[in-house]
Amino acid sequence: KVIWTVLVAILGYASSLPVGDDSLCAAEDLAKYKIIFTGKWSQIAFPKQYPLYRPPAQWSSLLGVTHSSDYSMWKKNEYASNGVRDFAEKGEAWALMKEIEEAGEKIQSVHGIFSAPAISSGTGQTSTELDVHPRHPLVSFVVRIVPSPDWFVGIDSLNLCEGDHWVEEVSVDLFPYDAGTDSGFTFSSPNFATIPQDTVTEITCSSPNHPANSFYYPKLKILPPIAQVTMVKIKKSQLGLSAPIINPPAKTNEIIDSVS
Amino acid sequence: KVIWTVLVAILGYASSLPVGDDSLCAAEDLAKYKIIFTGKWSQIAFPKQYPLYRPPAQWSSLLGVTHSSDYSMWKKNEYASNGVRDFAEKGEAWALMKEIEEAGEKIQSVHGIFSAPAISSGTGQTSTELDVHPRHPLVSFVVRIVPSPDWFVGIDSLNLCEGDHWVEEVSVDLFPYDAGTDSGFTFSSPNFATIPQDTVTEITCSSPNHPANSFYYPKLKILPPIAQVTMVKIKKSQLGLSAPIINPPAKTNEIIDSVS
Repeated sequence: KVIWTVLVAILGYASSLPVGDDSLCAAEDLAKYKIIFTGKWSQIAFPKQYPLYRPPAQWSSLLGVTHSSDYSMWKKNEYASNGVRDFAEKGEAWALMKEIEEAGEKIQSVHGIFSAPAISSGTGQTSTELDVHPRHPLVSFVVRIVPSPDWFVGIDSLNLCEGDHWVEEVSVDLFPYDAGTDSGFTFSSPNFATIPQDTVTEITCSSPNHPANSFYYPKLKILPPIAQVTMVKIKKSQLGLSAPIINPPAKTNEIIDSVS
Repeated sequence: KVIWTVLVAILGYASSLPVGDDSLCAAEDLAKYKIIFTGKWSQIAFPKQYPLYRPPAQWSSLLGVTHSSDYSMWKKNEYASNGVRDFAEKGEAWALMKEIEEAGEKIQSVHGIFSAPAISSGTGQTSTELDVHPRHPLVSFVVRIVPSPDWFVGIDSLNLCEGDHWVEEVSVDLFPYDAGTDSGFTFSSPNFATIPQDTVTEITCSSPNHPANSFYYPKLKILPPIAQVTMVKIKKSQLGLSAPIINPPAKTNEIIDSVS
């Protein structure tokens, strides 16, 4: 059943079906996950124009959010928010963090923000922990591809809740997206704003269909994944290094004692 | 009393007195803080060799930890760990995260890791949230100065617990440190390993005492702060955006109902 969920999640994600339906989450309590991001942007897998200097291929900080279906960080074929644009173009997280906080305050659609440190090479790993909640079981994040005009990888509204329980583990292959805000064609293109702004589009080996594009590999059917993300549920016994989440049980006992 | 605490913290920190004595923390429960890091590395304040291109002045991801006095992330006049070296030299966080996780598993000296996104300019802000716990009331973090040989700013073992309660707010001015692992003198010096490794030292306007050093300003008495950090306790009512920490009260009611 777990594997099935994982498959559904991956297929749903890959084909952009809505996987973000959180209306059915009947899991109890919150769940804690470890999220591990693995960069697979090697010169062997992506030889074309692979950035070696100033800066060499690398990944920005990872910025993510746990949320309900009332919030969307980014979505394929829709326009990127100003915050996502700043992040995808410059790795500047402040505006995006503000957008998320506002969504949390105004419509209670956000549970929390999480971030993981940047990776200073194209391959390598980073990780952090995140909390999901029955009312906020969806995970979204973005990581900027550095250098690039406005390219990023990420997850949009992956649901970690399956009926009455939380998914144990899920892995998703990641492919590059264009935020639609800068018209550069190659990793090191100078800034050139896209006016009017375009929607977020997936970059494939044949789209944009132009030989100058850094990901244009006409002999391939699909690009190899440029990154991968894995989320693993943390067992309660491993929770924190000092079990920080649970309220001290003393209070419940006190209530029982006083009523009985 | 709050202001007094803040002053003690700042003075204690600035003069490298041990502010990390966590043996007396009698606060109940954990506390949640918002931590805001502000870069103040402007060309006006630091005109000498200010990095404008490839890369321009900026800050790495912030990587921090909440812990007990049994753990130390870094300390002035002591040798940097391999993890701190990798982070200070290259912004590579993985080894440092592993060191922290190991300290958490082996000697239970760590409560949690936190990180905040990088800032893509010398001035700007980033933020995240962190939890402290009576057994782990100390906060340490590092942020790499980019570009630089192995320079960073940070906090070493700032105690957020004051007797039986948590400090409401604390701000600390930050000054540059040299991790002692790369002998470069200027922001853009090529890599040049320091062998044998030196200890972590504060960089001042007169030390290293050499005109080539990027922070050498012989006419100044002290450098202006290159960054600042503020930690503000989050009120329970503001906790999370959907009160994630507290268990659903339904269960307690059920217990009362069933017993009464």
